[in-house]
Amino acid sequence: MTTYRIACIPGDGIGTEVVPAACEVLEAVGAAHDLEFRFTGFDWSCERFTREGAMMPPDGLDRLREHDAILLGAVGYPGVPDHVSLWGLLIPIRRAFDQYVNLRPVRVFEGVPGPLRDASGTDLVIVRENTEGEYSEVGGRMFSGTPDEFAVQESVFSRRGITRVVDYALDLADERGRSLTSATKSNGLIHTMPFWDEIVEERCAERPSVSWESEHIDALAAKLVLDSRKYDVIVASNLFGDILSDLAAGVAGSIGIAPSGNIDPERRNPSMFEPVHGSAPDIAGQGIANPLGTVWAAALMLDHLGHDDAASDVIRAMERLLTDGPRTPDLGGGATTTEVTRALLDLL
Amino acid sequence: MTTYRIACIPGDGIGTEVVPAACEVLEAVGAAHDLEFRFTGFDWSCERFTREGAMMPPDGLDRLREHDAILLGAVGYPGVPDHVSLWGLLIPIRRAFDQYVNLRPVRVFEGVPGPLRDASGTDLVIVRENTEGEYSEVGGRMFSGTPDEFAVQESVFSRRGITRVVDYALDLADERGRSLTSATKSNGLIHTMPFWDEIVEERCAERPSVSWESEHIDALAAKLVLDSRKYDVIVASNLFGDILSDLAAGVAGSIGIAPSGNIDPERRNPSMFEPVHGSAPDIAGQGIANPLGTVWAAALMLDHLGHDDAASDVIRAMERLLTDGPRTPDLGGGATTTEVTRALLDLL
Ligand SMILES: CC(C)[C@H](C(=O)O)[C@@H](O)C(=O)O
Ligand SMILES: CC(C)[C@H](C(=O)O)[C@@H](O)C(=O)O
Repeated sequence: MTTYRIACIPGDGIGTEVVPAACEVLEAVGAAHDLEFRFTGFDWSCERFTREGAMMPPDGLDRLREHDAILLGAVGYPGVPDHVSLWGLLIPIRRAFDQYVNLRPVRVFEGVPGPLRDASGTDLVIVRENTEGEYSEVGGRMFSGTPDEFAVQESVFSRRGITRVVDYALDLADERGRSLTSATKSNGLIHTMPFWDEIVEERCAERPSVSWESEHIDALAAKLVLDSRKYDVIVASNLFGDILSDLAAGVAGSIGIAPSGNIDPERRNPSMFEPVHGSAPDIAGQGIANPLGTVWAAALMLDHLGHDDAASDVIRAMERLLTDGPRTPDLGGGATTTEVTRALLDLL
Repeated sequence: MTTYRIACIPGDGIGTEVVPAACEVLEAVGAAHDLEFRFTGFDWSCERFTREGAMMPPDGLDRLREHDAILLGAVGYPGVPDHVSLWGLLIPIRRAFDQYVNLRPVRVFEGVPGPLRDASGTDLVIVRENTEGEYSEVGGRMFSGTPDEFAVQESVFSRRGITRVVDYALDLADERGRSLTSATKSNGLIHTMPFWDEIVEERCAERPSVSWESEHIDALAAKLVLDSRKYDVIVASNLFGDILSDLAAGVAGSIGIAPSGNIDPERRNPSMFEPVHGSAPDIAGQGIANPLGTVWAAALMLDHLGHDDAASDVIRAMERLLTDGPRTPDLGGGATTTEVTRALLDLL
């Protein structure tokens, strides 16, 4: 019996409804694979922020460090500005634990038609750089409050940062046996993106087993809609990966089920897994949130912890559930979070 | 009879095939509206670059300045890096002539089904900031050639730059009578995008007749696929506008017919009109390029010059042509550039 300590941060809104569902699934699949999960709950959230003035306590990161992985629901709350909630919790965790890969698989499931006439079979993974790039604290304003006011923000790309995420993407493409696409915009962003391209080219040259191409982000966004099946692994900067992964989830008609892994591939620190959807204040408290985004995130966690057999069990159960099981309203059904979770547990 | 001097820069590849077609259309519609066009051709291109080492002559901008508007085909050529061709022609023109609005209408035409199950009726305009923002020369590298190498690039947003493009978008939304959506990413880009949001909010507060909302670029990209009909005028930064407008053209299934206007709304300088598609070296020289992107760009030009009746004639002819006229291969037809142009001239 292997035991894992999992830090659970349900967060706000529907985050508090979907994380418990995913924990149940982990317990069920764990029982079949001789894995034990010890969950520690943390109430870090915007709700806590309005009460105590901080998203998490000063020793928050240290407490997380005692765990093998983190399961996050969603943070966000009407009245608390996004840049407070995110830069007070999500982004510090990504950086403190050097979770430099943001992994976002996107699939068109058989039972989920999606908005495109013809996207069935789409099965891709976006590997997003998760610690540097366009998301940078460097910047500020000048001449505030005057007509001459301006703001600057500096994107910062390091050779080390690009190399490691590209290498990760190459490993993944090699494993999946298909191809790698690198998102760029070297024709517009003439300092950072040519640097990105150079390193991509260098790394790919050392990996002849993977076929690859580079595509400008504008064209790539259009092609994801026109020809989504073509793509396998896409490697992108922090901002481009953010945009492409939401876009691809939209293309698959599955924002409610899309997961995201914030991963330290070297396993020096706990990695963090979360659904892509937000806290959805509009439906919070009604018990109708789709738990499958968090369940899929839990499957990514199992995979990361080295249990790909357990992860596959969860994915297979999800596939079957999506084909003919009950669905929450976001997928056109009328089932509750509990009903979907029950049905999934039955399938396991 | 009003006379306009039009600078034509066909550029490379299919640019040289579609610009003459659009000039014919301008002549035809001009004849019906008492407008005369005097075209001056310029061979500025990557082809010129490989021959003479520069995309345009040193006095290029001065020569353009003598014209009322510019019609550009496409630049780009295998072997000439994008950042050379673009920063040697397209981007200097945008900036020297302070063409601070990049206008990109996107429509789903009846006869052009596109990749989405249900996008018919989509009719939106992207108003992209076209001179500052993320496309910036400020930046460089440090520790080149060492493992510590890094590159930085500074986005620069000015109050003046944001205000004027937002005001333009508000005017347009007011005129179209629907709504304004502002693309942001203030939760990730914490210096520049909150500044953008502040100014959008200020300007919109003074225009109660326009209903508006702000949407993060990642969510907006997904929603453009899921619910494209919802959008009317979208205002966005240089980079976000670039991504969204290609994406929206993809959604409409019409990259081959999408136009772009680089506009100085104050009319101090010539504005520049171009199709969104590139030079397409793969089909260049075959006479099968779709001329409608450039034709639609010419309609935007007519509108900008104050002849919206002439512009409407062109658009109506295009609509009819797309419903049941001949089509080039990119739209699934077998017609040539000449055949499509002829058919359009007949409809005019
Ligand atoms: C070619 C490139 C520099 C250009 C841009 O990004 O502005 C193009 O994509 C466009 O949209 O006109
Ligand atoms: C909420 C936001 C800061 C975050 C991001 O952009 O990284 C989110 O969109 C995501 O993709 O996890």
